[in-house]
Amino acid sequence: MDLTDLELVDHHCHGLITRDLERPEFESLLTEAAAPSALGGSLFDSQIGFALRRHCPPLLDLEPHADPDAYLARRAELGAAEVNRRLLAATGTQTFLVDTGYLPEPITTPDELAALTGGQGQEIVRLEAVAAEVLEQGAADFPDNLRTELGRRCATAVGVKSIAAYRAGLALGGQRPTDAQVVAAADRLLRSGSTRVADPVLHEFLVWSGIDLRMPVQFHVGYGDADTDLHRGDPLLMTDLLRATEPHGVPIMLLHTYPFHRNAGFLAQVFGHVFCDVGLATHNLGARSAALIPELLELAPFGKVLFSSDAFGLAELYLLGTLLFRRGLGSYLGSGLDDGAWTAADAQRVAELIGSGNARRAYRL
Amino acid sequence: MDLTDLELVDHHCHGLITRDLERPEFESLLTEAAAPSALGGSLFDSQIGFALRRHCPPLLDLEPHADPDAYLARRAELGAAEVNRRLLAATGTQTFLVDTGYLPEPITTPDELAALTGGQGQEIVRLEAVAAEVLEQGAADFPDNLRTELGRRCATAVGVKSIAAYRAGLALGGQRPTDAQVVAAADRLLRSGSTRVADPVLHEFLVWSGIDLRMPVQFHVGYGDADTDLHRGDPLLMTDLLRATEPHGVPIMLLHTYPFHRNAGFLAQVFGHVFCDVGLATHNLGARSAALIPELLELAPFGKVLFSSDAFGLAELYLLGTLLFRRGLGSYLGSGLDDGAWTAADAQRVAELIGSGNARRAYRL
Amino acid sequence: MDLTDLELVDHHCHGLITRDLERPEFESLLTEAAAPSALGGSLFDSQIGFALRRHCPPLLDLEPHADPDAYLARRAELGAAEVNRRLLAATGTQTFLVDTGYLPEPITTPDELAALTGGQGQEIVRLEAVAAEVLEQGAADFPDNLRTELGRRCATAVGVKSIAAYRAGLALGGQRPTDAQVVAAADRLLRSGSTRVADPVLHEFLVWSGIDLRMPVQFHVGYGDADTDLHRGDPLLMTDLLRATEPHGVPIMLLHTYPFHRNAGFLAQVFGHVFCDVGLATHNLGARSAALIPELLELAPFGKVLFSSDAFGLAELYLLGTLLFRRGLGSYLGSGLDDGAWTAADAQRVAELIGSGNARRAYRL
Repeated sequence: MDLTDLELVDHHCHGLITRDLERPEFESLLTEAAAPSALGGSLFDSQIGFALRRHCPPLLDLEPHADPDAYLARRAELGAAEVNRRLLAATGTQTFLVDTGYLPEPITTPDELAALTGGQGQEIVRLEAVAAEVLEQGAADFPDNLRTELGRRCATAVGVKSIAAYRAGLALGGQRPTDAQVVAAADRLLRSGSTRVADPVLHEFLVWSGIDLRMPVQFHVGYGDADTDLHRGDPLLMTDLLRATEPHGVPIMLLHTYPFHRNAGFLAQVFGHVFCDVGLATHNLGARSAALIPELLELAPFGKVLFSSDAFGLAELYLLGTLLFRRGLGSYLGSGLDDGAWTAADAQRVAELIGSGNARRAYRL
Repeated sequence: MDLTDLELVDHHCHGLITRDLERPEFESLLTEAAAPSALGGSLFDSQIGFALRRHCPPLLDLEPHADPDAYLARRAELGAAEVNRRLLAATGTQTFLVDTGYLPEPITTPDELAALTGGQGQEIVRLEAVAAEVLEQGAADFPDNLRTELGRRCATAVGVKSIAAYRAGLALGGQRPTDAQVVAAADRLLRSGSTRVADPVLHEFLVWSGIDLRMPVQFHVGYGDADTDLHRGDPLLMTDLLRATEPHGVPIMLLHTYPFHRNAGFLAQVFGHVFCDVGLATHNLGARSAALIPELLELAPFGKVLFSSDAFGLAELYLLGTLLFRRGLGSYLGSGLDDGAWTAADAQRVAELIGSGNARRAYRL
Repeated sequence: MDLTDLELVDHHCHGLITRDLERPEFESLLTEAAAPSALGGSLFDSQIGFALRRHCPPLLDLEPHADPDAYLARRAELGAAEVNRRLLAATGTQTFLVDTGYLPEPITTPDELAALTGGQGQEIVRLEAVAAEVLEQGAADFPDNLRTELGRRCATAVGVKSIAAYRAGLALGGQRPTDAQVVAAADRLLRSGSTRVADPVLHEFLVWSGIDLRMPVQFHVGYGDADTDLHRGDPLLMTDLLRATEPHGVPIMLLHTYPFHRNAGFLAQVFGHVFCDVGLATHNLGARSAALIPELLELAPFGKVLFSSDAFGLAELYLLGTLLFRRGLGSYLGSGLDDGAWTAADAQRVAELIGSGNARRAYRL
């Protein structure tokens, strides 16, 4: 089933790097490894590397499967601006919800990113980044200050994001912390000389503050870089928090979720406000993403599954994230169609829900 | 490989609801979600929803893929009794082992259920339900009272079931608790004003009491509704208990097990008394159950895998549980046959073991 | 894609039993079960049993799918020496890295094993076995004594192996223990009357001692027999240790890894020194190994994946481990080739990396 023209809302991505890149820099952005390792060889020898060599060279006027050096030489020749233009245009993404809280170097704003496809950019506010700023004002008024600043930031945003998984882990509690508890935790943190939130009480407070603003709350779940303790990133650890937040009717978005995507699908079935995706994993798994997407579509109701690329930095990741998603979902729905599992009309409707409809409903776009 | 006529022992299911149902009630019984959510849309848009629309309408004289409203209208027109008769007859299940401990509303008895297929019904006694009754008599004599009452109840039953996974979790110990420890735990529970067992000591005592009666012990494992803490439902947490119980030679049945079915298969290989199934998941995964069943058949010896539907309430779930199991197992064994992995005679023998032979041996039916 | 003649380095296996075996002994060596169970039937009724019956009988002049008794009768008739010769020759393995630390009965040395294929044998030193010997000399000088003895043993070895997963579990710390801590732990152990290491401090010390010798460190991970607590064998528990050891640039080999192979693949991507395999699982999953191998090849860079059989005792396990690996990898790479995912040259190069190149680089063979 051909989903080349399916409308896409990319409900979780980052900005593009606009400068030219040398091969080691390019490889370090290609996967979640910090850099290629002498022990392991080139990161192009991986699923994502082969997917890139298959799908991207033709967009830079090369044959498919061009070797990495030839590809990077052509990329340099065209220049980052032209490459970004070509690859982003080929994504066909109409709407980007952009996490603006990760800025290791200058990258595109949501509007600059969206301009490359003629689409729209919207902001997702990273909770821990706002907290770090507000904590500069001290612990005593932190709860009120945070609520005020988050309210201000969310006035023009469509959601918030928690990176508790990278800090304290996802074993968050089912009780909303009191302001006194939050002040005490903020005080402990500031006394340690840091504004880097890594305390369940503070993560929970941030999440509840987002819910009070009725902002959908994205959670980093599962797959990430070497800074994440993956065994603390299983979404099942959030069960108490999910029970406590469900009555509020504000969506909770479980991002990435690999290799816990079946766990995420379970949560999306039994909790009315939980959504999930396999962003980041889709492009990292390359051709194997065609096996991953059906695993997500087991327990997760089709009204609760979203598309995201989680692309950062390299234009290739936006392209691969969308292209592999279109191919993987299309191939799965198409094989079900051949097998009589559903009708063509239902398959089309499900593709539209997952591609954009669910995101429009959940984020009220 | 066509398993349409394979004899089936459904070693774990519940009773049928016999009254007519409105659409919201029907949806709330369709999956493990408590109800459809406004955020997520209809639960018919899910694997089980599509499987139902594909396979059930023809049994009610409609075309496959009838839309949900048309299906439910025809269902209401025929009435629950006729629908139950038609769908249950189509299951082809000869023997039902029925967990009689979950009765949120009046449902069929084992005999009433089995009568719909001309088969036989047998009882599985839910341990925690018996315990709750016996605890009404106080803590002091609880161990003896429980043993007496369980013995009485098991005289006409073929197994017992523990729902420790829903209460204290599956991290049960390797030591049989003493009566003094059991009395102390019962006393704590009663002083808290409850008879709802949720204490490892009491769950362990109940399990050992079943083993003393040489009753196969079923455990809820993995997949369930929002009341379960799925991360405490991994069967690997039972390792100490399995080591301690193995010498007694009484079967331990790991039910459902998704998404921990590979872990369950490992336990079934290395512990001589452990059996496993993927009931409940089979119908909830719809067409994807064809990918699930082969994942169970990795480490689990074929003499240790059982069939169950874990159907409750809706006749459609009994039908889908059996039909998808027949299709999934048949498709897997058939593809192995095409590939030369086994002979037709071996494939047939394995299908008979899993469909009924293993259950007959383990439960001494 | 036909990988029948692919060069293989089996980077983790054990020795062969050279005496004749009765059926119960044979079955007890076939899987990780200690013995067939009366409750569960023959272990030949399993994936590995069917794989054996398919692939091994022709090498003993029987038809494929010979029944177990006929196979074992022919095996006895030929005698263990001839069977070992025939099956090992058919593996096509050129280099064996042999764990010499598990000797429940007399088995072949690395040289004797390798002689059966005309290949080479090298030794992997089991850390806990060396520790148990050295602990006989007391706790006070244990750190120095261990370093001396391990250095002596490693002079002719190519790596070391930790079985922490079988003892204290894989939740090892990120701090190298001091000699004082090691002496205290050794003292505790000896006072308990044992030299069987099962203490995180001692396992960590052994691992660091191997790293100091720049020996690649193999870890038992995941799948094993009933002595392993599989929930303590998830490689994600090693995250702190992996962060701490990465700067040293000494390879860490995650063995077996099933059912945590996707977790292992993640670690192999984000940590430059981590490698992984699905040995032991490959032959135990029989025909299903063709589904397992692609799951490992998701996040794991192709320069970080290794081949091992983890065969012990039975010649059939060496044959099945290699044959199923060749078939599974060949089938996966071949289907990608048909689908345009990579070129024939790249597929061949990846097969050579995984079959032998990665092992040669990592172990400096």
